[in-house]
Amino acid sequence: MVEHMMASRMAGMKASEIRELLKLLDQPGIISFAGGIPDPALFPAADFAEATAEALSDANCAQALQYSVSEGYLPLRRWIARHMAGLGIACAPDQVMITSGSQQALDYLGKMFLSPGDTALVGWPTYLGALAAFNAYEPHYEQLNLNGNRAAEDYRAAAQAAGGQVKFAYLSADFANPTGETVDRAGRERLLKLADALDCPILEDAAYQALRYDGVPVPPILALELAQKGDLDACRTIYCGSFSKTLSPGLRLGWVVAARPVISKLVLLKQASDLHTATLNQMVVCAVAERAFYSHVARLRDIYGRRRDRMLAALAEHMPEGVTWTRPEGGMFIWVTLPPHLDGATLLAQAIDTARLAFVPGQAFFADGSGGNTLRLAFSCADEAATDEGIRRLGVLLHTQI
Amino acid sequence: MVEHMMASRMAGMKASEIRELLKLLDQPGIISFAGGIPDPALFPAADFAEATAEALSDANCAQALQYSVSEGYLPLRRWIARHMAGLGIACAPDQVMITSGSQQALDYLGKMFLSPGDTALVGWPTYLGALAAFNAYEPHYEQLNLNGNRAAEDYRAAAQAAGGQVKFAYLSADFANPTGETVDRAGRERLLKLADALDCPILEDAAYQALRYDGVPVPPILALELAQKGDLDACRTIYCGSFSKTLSPGLRLGWVVAARPVISKLVLLKQASDLHTATLNQMVVCAVAERAFYSHVARLRDIYGRRRDRMLAALAEHMPEGVTWTRPEGGMFIWVTLPPHLDGATLLAQAIDTARLAFVPGQAFFADGSGGNTLRLAFSCADEAATDEGIRRLGVLLHTQI
Repeated sequence: MVEHMMASRMAGMKASEIRELLKLLDQPGIISFAGGIPDPALFPAADFAEATAEALSDANCAQALQYSVSEGYLPLRRWIARHMAGLGIACAPDQVMITSGSQQALDYLGKMFLSPGDTALVGWPTYLGALAAFNAYEPHYEQLNLNGNRAAEDYRAAAQAAGGQVKFAYLSADFANPTGETVDRAGRERLLKLADALDCPILEDAAYQALRYDGVPVPPILALELAQKGDLDACRTIYCGSFSKTLSPGLRLGWVVAARPVISKLVLLKQASDLHTATLNQMVVCAVAERAFYSHVARLRDIYGRRRDRMLAALAEHMPEGVTWTRPEGGMFIWVTLPPHLDGATLLAQAIDTARLAFVPGQAFFADGSGGNTLRLAFSCADEAATDEGIRRLGVLLHTQI
Repeated sequence: MVEHMMASRMAGMKASEIRELLKLLDQPGIISFAGGIPDPALFPAADFAEATAEALSDANCAQALQYSVSEGYLPLRRWIARHMAGLGIACAPDQVMITSGSQQALDYLGKMFLSPGDTALVGWPTYLGALAAFNAYEPHYEQLNLNGNRAAEDYRAAAQAAGGQVKFAYLSADFANPTGETVDRAGRERLLKLADALDCPILEDAAYQALRYDGVPVPPILALELAQKGDLDACRTIYCGSFSKTLSPGLRLGWVVAARPVISKLVLLKQASDLHTATLNQMVVCAVAERAFYSHVARLRDIYGRRRDRMLAALAEHMPEGVTWTRPEGGMFIWVTLPPHLDGATLLAQAIDTARLAFVPGQAFFADGSGGNTLRLAFSCADEAATDEGIRRLGVLLHTQI
């Protein structure tokens, strides 16, 4: 009875297909490559139990259970500053803000920059959750082209035609969700030039950054910009990090590193929207990060890397002619492109029904609704037997249709 | 270098005076009645330690540390549904959504209803954090009058003049922050009539609801509406609850109870903005609520009630003529009105400087910037000696100025 009172922005809010799917996949016998989630068997649970007991001890519980500052727990911001220095981004704790997962950073950045009709540059495809976060602020989307063959003037004209300005370029540069692909150094440098020409921020989503299995690390976009400009407060790149893919997604812990004027505005948004990220969670993640982050990530890289290898080998064995896929150097995803006449959503319905197999159809990752002939496969939770059998079933299904 | 790209909504985002103040009050020797926070000595820390150890045990850690659904942990929604039934609001778990504190509910409700120029009806004064949350959506404010002597037509005309519609009435009906006052049953019924006439939602902020120390409980506005309409899905009142004042604010746990069409849209906003509230926090709060909510709240009511009594007695003893204050039946706050020529902010500067005393000047709680001659005193963290001495110092300071 109050729906007619809702603001126009609500028209753009739609359910995430992935998350609706996740609810259905608890049935026994289904092999799922759908959820882009960490393997729960690999959580550093003993470290968390120890850190939590410590945070709730007599000495610390009054702090852990109490309100705290919106910018985040200082020891955790200090740990993040040291971690970022290791990535070539020297920063101070007041250039770091803690968020409730990097999803929250995307919401805040959409809120900070987008007025209705403004343009966001995003990949075709891009992270579905970023589109969901930005949609609330009623943007126009243009395809972010990293080949350097679309001029700033062209983007500017398209944005003006849509009734606003280019407000930012968003991308996940390392082992992106959903493609698994990484933007090389030259691509990052072209993006920095484009952003300079457009005078707009770059939102660098680094959710998967730590999960590299082979190949040569590429510096973060913010590291490249910092090397050029010499002062983080003069940089336009806003770096969004996350503990979700390394330590735990269920604790909802992420961070933003950016110029102080951006951080101070983000702190106001945080204060107005949820006061602060749970104090206990920040203390506990800080303790576990200090104790075990790098050793734990080394273990994840080993295990997830082998799972990626296994899935790539199974795809090579079972996919029919005309199907192609990416070979990610890290992350959790392989992106499959089917012949143009096939539709991922139709295939998923058949796969669940006849093959007891699940994956995510790719179309939802495209802001323009294209990409119907694509699929996302997550290898992070799949053991060898499930990978072999699941990809075999996918191959059988595709052989009947190609 | 990216500030010029920010959306117009950022102009309305300002730092909360209270939270900035809180950062400064760790100095020794200051008696503070400023922070509207629970006494950390009263947190049920042992219960939390036990519940957390259980949630991070081998049997449960894979769930506690993993992603979960946006609507919230089902056993916690079930506990809340039972709790709400006890308040006269029978509801199903799918009429409940978990939020990261009730502050987040206010942000989502602003986002859901307000377009720039729309009108929100709020008290003069009202909860500062509600204004902060709503400001991001660029509303116009009109004073919510609960005496029934302002007609719906009048509100409608004012909203139209401001360029939008009346989108909701927001209030804290029990022991409100900052005044400590409670809206009586007749006032609640007048508000329901007004909202029916305006055909707009009522946002019922029930953050302090459980903390009644004496007097007769008044049914929640949603309970009164439900009794009239017979079906929660036909109700326009949206109830925002919180565990922050009862179990712990640092875990950031609140909830919304509303009609299903509202809840389903809130779930989309939640999914887009932070995916879900931390799984561990929901499991732990659920376990502690099941085990100890009512006994713990009984203890809080006893202790906080005596602190209120002590502060009221001290005010009666030390306040000069011309100063008045509220006599709250619950909550954490007493609201002081000074003679019109005095200014709360000026007085605070003097109080910190010369009397080593802190409180919150009232002006920030007024959407129209009035209320300069008011103060908010929190009694929740003040023991007897601090209360007696702090109110004595306030009296001395005021005697020099009146």
